[in-house]
Amino acid sequence: MALEIERKFLVNNFDPSIADQSNRIVQGYIHSDENKTVRVRIKGDKGFITIKGKSDNEGLSRYEWEKEIPVEEVNELLKLCEGGVIDKIRYDVSVNNHTYEVDVFSGDNEGLTVAEIELSSTDEHFIKPDWLGKEVTGDTKYYNALLMQNPYKNW
Amino acid sequence: MALEIERKFLVNNFDPSIADQSNRIVQGYIHSDENKTVRVRIKGDKGFITIKGKSDNEGLSRYEWEKEIPVEEVNELLKLCEGGVIDKIRYDVSVNNHTYEVDVFSGDNEGLTVAEIELSSTDEHFIKPDWLGKEVTGDTKYYNALLMQNPYKNW
Repeated sequence: MALEIERKFLVNNFDPSIADQSNRIVQGYIHSDENKTVRVRIKGDKGFITIKGKSDNEGLSRYEWEKEIPVEEVNELLKLCEGGVIDKIRYDVSVNNHTYEVDVFSGDNEGLTVAEIELSSTDEHFIKPDWLGKEVTGDTKYYNALLMQNPYKNW
Repeated sequence: MALEIERKFLVNNFDPSIADQSNRIVQGYIHSDENKTVRVRIKGDKGFITIKGKSDNEGLSRYEWEKEIPVEEVNELLKLCEGGVIDKIRYDVSVNNHTYEVDVFSGDNEGLTVAEIELSSTDEHFIKPDWLGKEVTGDTKYYNALLMQNPYKNW
């Protein structure tokens, strides 16, 4: 069973030029409740379907299943998603031996930038660069599924 | 877009010996509402994930997306399914140039047997063998997702 251990932070004054790469992400939710989500995503020129379980450990870890699928199939499945899509640019930023995924949102979530780091254990050490802001791990309002229901512009 | 055109019938006095093959099917629902379902299934020694959209044409046609995935992954995803599983034996029965899928349910739906035939158009001609009973196409209570919520033994 794939268990995802992640920590999430707000980002201050992010400079995209420090990123190793960037991809546009467009994603929607076939289903989303507090126990699980079924997400379809286009990232760059690739498509994915992802199912996530409930968060454990105060939001630190979560069961995740993911498969790559053709972009055309994601486009079909996006038609089943209610409430529109999340649209963002994801920048991958290497810091020491980790990669931060920095998401700069557009559309109704414009102005919001968050960074996630994936860890192999809950006590793994990692470096916090100076552009990293407040930690928001486990704060459900920053879940992408909830950013679609209650976007940043309404906060 | 894959559109599934199917008709569904009750079955009287089914003789399993007329089947070309049979497989046990165990399946659960990650999500199910009137607009869409997300199903995981083990059929024989294979695993599948299937997403179906809303029925059209009085239940005749429905958008369907399906991918084969490893059985171990289905077993993980079944843990996310609420309300248990559907357990049945599926018999494939050739009749002329079509195949009827005859599902003999067990567990809480024991006693129920239904047959489905997939057509390439809504007006395609097909033969009805004498073991075929009343047509129940579009009757939502025979949807597997609903048979889990309100099983045959409660009818």
